[in-house]
Amino acid sequence: MAWKQMCRCDQLQKLCDLIFSEDLDQEEVNNLTTCLCHLLADDLTPGTSLLPQDISAESIQESLGRPLYVLFDNLITLPEDDHRRQPLLLLLVEMHKITLHVGYHFLYFLKASNIKTEKVQENNECSFLTYRDLCKAAGQKDFAGFIIKDLRLCSEDDPRVLSWIIPDIYNSFPKQTRGNAELLQLVLERLDSSQLHDLVCMVLQGSLQMFDNSSFATILEKSLQWETVEQLFLWQLAKAHEIPVDCCLSVMPKLKFTSHSATVTNTHGEALSNILMMLRRESPSEILLRTLLLREFRVEDPTVATILQYWVQRYEDKMAKLINDVVNNKPQPSPNKRKRNQSTKANAVPLDQVLSHLNHLRTACGQTTFFALETMQDTLQTAQNQCSETQKKKYGDLFALIEEEDEEEPAPEPQRKPKSNRGRKPKGRKKQESESEEESSEEEDVKKPSRKRKKNNQVGSDSD
Amino acid sequence: MAWKQMCRCDQLQKLCDLIFSEDLDQEEVNNLTTCLCHLLADDLTPGTSLLPQDISAESIQESLGRPLYVLFDNLITLPEDDHRRQPLLLLLVEMHKITLHVGYHFLYFLKASNIKTEKVQENNECSFLTYRDLCKAAGQKDFAGFIIKDLRLCSEDDPRVLSWIIPDIYNSFPKQTRGNAELLQLVLERLDSSQLHDLVCMVLQGSLQMFDNSSFATILEKSLQWETVEQLFLWQLAKAHEIPVDCCLSVMPKLKFTSHSATVTNTHGEALSNILMMLRRESPSEILLRTLLLREFRVEDPTVATILQYWVQRYEDKMAKLINDVVNNKPQPSPNKRKRNQSTKANAVPLDQVLSHLNHLRTACGQTTFFALETMQDTLQTAQNQCSETQKKKYGDLFALIEEEDEEEPAPEPQRKPKSNRGRKPKGRKKQESESEEESSEEEDVKKPSRKRKKNNQVGSDSD
Repeated sequence: MAWKQMCRCDQLQKLCDLIFSEDLDQEEVNNLTTCLCHLLADDLTPGTSLLPQDISAESIQESLGRPLYVLFDNLITLPEDDHRRQPLLLLLVEMHKITLHVGYHFLYFLKASNIKTEKVQENNECSFLTYRDLCKAAGQKDFAGFIIKDLRLCSEDDPRVLSWIIPDIYNSFPKQTRGNAELLQLVLERLDSSQLHDLVCMVLQGSLQMFDNSSFATILEKSLQWETVEQLFLWQLAKAHEIPVDCCLSVMPKLKFTSHSATVTNTHGEALSNILMMLRRESPSEILLRTLLLREFRVEDPTVATILQYWVQRYEDKMAKLINDVVNNKPQPSPNKRKRNQSTKANAVPLDQVLSHLNHLRTACGQTTFFALETMQDTLQTAQNQCSETQKKKYGDLFALIEEEDEEEPAPEPQRKPKSNRGRKPKGRKKQESESEEESSEEEDVKKPSRKRKKNNQVGSDSD
Repeated sequence: MAWKQMCRCDQLQKLCDLIFSEDLDQEEVNNLTTCLCHLLADDLTPGTSLLPQDISAESIQESLGRPLYVLFDNLITLPEDDHRRQPLLLLLVEMHKITLHVGYHFLYFLKASNIKTEKVQENNECSFLTYRDLCKAAGQKDFAGFIIKDLRLCSEDDPRVLSWIIPDIYNSFPKQTRGNAELLQLVLERLDSSQLHDLVCMVLQGSLQMFDNSSFATILEKSLQWETVEQLFLWQLAKAHEIPVDCCLSVMPKLKFTSHSATVTNTHGEALSNILMMLRRESPSEILLRTLLLREFRVEDPTVATILQYWVQRYEDKMAKLINDVVNNKPQPSPNKRKRNQSTKANAVPLDQVLSHLNHLRTACGQTTFFALETMQDTLQTAQNQCSETQKKKYGDLFALIEEEDEEEPAPEPQRKPKSNRGRKPKGRKKQESESEEESSEEEDVKKPSRKRKKNNQVGSDSD
């Protein structure tokens, strides 16, 4: 068998020599292509992985013994300006048209032939750029599309090879690959958690970059249609790339959620959980707060109330101050006055929306002590004054947290508004303060239920 | 149909009254149980979710109209010391034995009946503790097992209900549930990403705790056998619970990895990626470094080299100092001398292991400038002096980074060891410095390839 393989390789080398010595016309090339694709059909039919089971420099060298690879080897050995290069390229282009598998075989060959055993120490620095020549010779303008077509077939036939060559593809063709959502999905569709760990390690080492801050929002938005595992893998990669939360904010308004929803459509739990986890590490700022409050209020969506509660528990005074600023629509301090006015106008949060989220914080998280802070009392008072009668009624329970101005107080205190009143409770609502009350009101909020792993959650269905 | 349902409810109420008025012996209970299970079979056969499609206080109230729930309602309405409670409990115990579905129906009822519409404002604070009475009356000592059995069936029949009641289960029975790996897996097996987001929100709000720092290592170890999605979900929850990296370190030696491995077994990419991501946020310390270096060296595992490289890029001088301490086996500073000596002895890293990881850092990450730091030059010199001849040969390329003592220098410098020589390159190895060399050596390391999402990565298999 090995002998037969060697014979076939010899014949291919003879063919190459023939191509080099003759001027083939298009018809001859076409006939030769048809014959070759037929003769090499076995070689090009996906079977076991191209990549050896146990990978070593030696086993990789052995894997390069395929007859087809004689053509590749001749191609990369020729200098770029050698006139014999073009007919060989044209032959490969025609073969690639008939049998797309030639594409990822070539990519595999390019990487594998770079890995030298101690015995073989040739000097040819064959690089992935020859792959680009194949695309050019095929007259294709869309190189990114060319890459994706080959890699898609590779991902279907041989995901091990995909995972092995993908870092080289990203590093050799950054312009076509970085931030390309289609390529990324193709990769994440097929990779398993171990292959992902390899990519994560390379990203952390600084030797691989699959996207950057500016391209992440677009990728994130497209990822909302992906399977859960693919989305979770994307978030792993986002963390490895150290994408900051700012790069996710533009997608926030598009993220929908319904607790315990019975239908699978339009629920973006993966993205929301991960953004929450990022926000958690941030200290609250006006821009973050406005972005959150601008999210449409839905009682079935605990996201905004959750991060408000998280921040209130840790940055109580700062949160009170920021919410007060938002209600009073105070501009955020900025050195550029024109820019400031623009951004304030763009980010102004309708009062009704602020109140709905605050009310949700009250009901969903049983938060009452926060509203007793002096700044929050001011905020509620200001908001109440701006409200219509309908709104006053709608947020009656929230406004009931406004402390009555000493009406029931037996003896007036000398200082009605002490500088610090952290943790002060509103007087008329003592009942709310007990822990069990907080818990039960919290439970009531989470009463709106969902289901979807896009997999195994139908009633009565079996696990996958 | 609704009328028929009401009639059946009336009949069940009459039955309850009968049970209350008579002293049933065991045989009578058994016969009654058989009859009831038969009559209520339709009710107990899983069909559509118990939880209404659109969840509101009203729809939840409506969902409580099942005849079976008349029994539950009578049970929770009776005071704890009422003598009529026991026979009803025994009846339910027997029914539960015949038809396990009774268990999660009861749990659903307990939560649902706590949710009141405006119209229904009863005062009965029915709690999940009645569920515990059911376990006691059944004479079962293993309450955790009792819970898990019911919830497992619920997860199979009706995952929406599982996700809806699980926070109450954790909060009502913390002793039996918190840190229980079996229960957690049961939950994560069935939940989808939206249901997980609900749990994440509650954890972040501080109203749910599923495990704590001390129980996490055990859970993590068990999770290594779980599916990829379940493991990723666990890590989401770990982040929400703010589990520190220290709680994962004990598992580190058990985590195996092989890049681009052809076999699925014993590769723990999920855990390793997530721990890497946690370590990344830490600044290097002696304990962390020792834990990493104590990991068995395998050239096919980029994990240790990756975090070393990440830290070297950010904390160069500190890393040099720490590695020097490890090689010299200097104890870590600790106020308690006895304790210090103990821990040093336990954590002493064999020199060969330190060198193998350092050599991996050199080859896998193309790291050379770090080794040129004065402290690292000292470290390498110290290590070389301690090495056997075999080791000197084995790590020849690493020791070649030791700068020759001015042998080739044309004119001796006044100060042979400047105070600061950050970024100084070793003299004899200039070739290594070029970026392309670094990249190619990096590529060479990643040449050991894997496959496994426990799903769809077989060659030629179709996507799911």
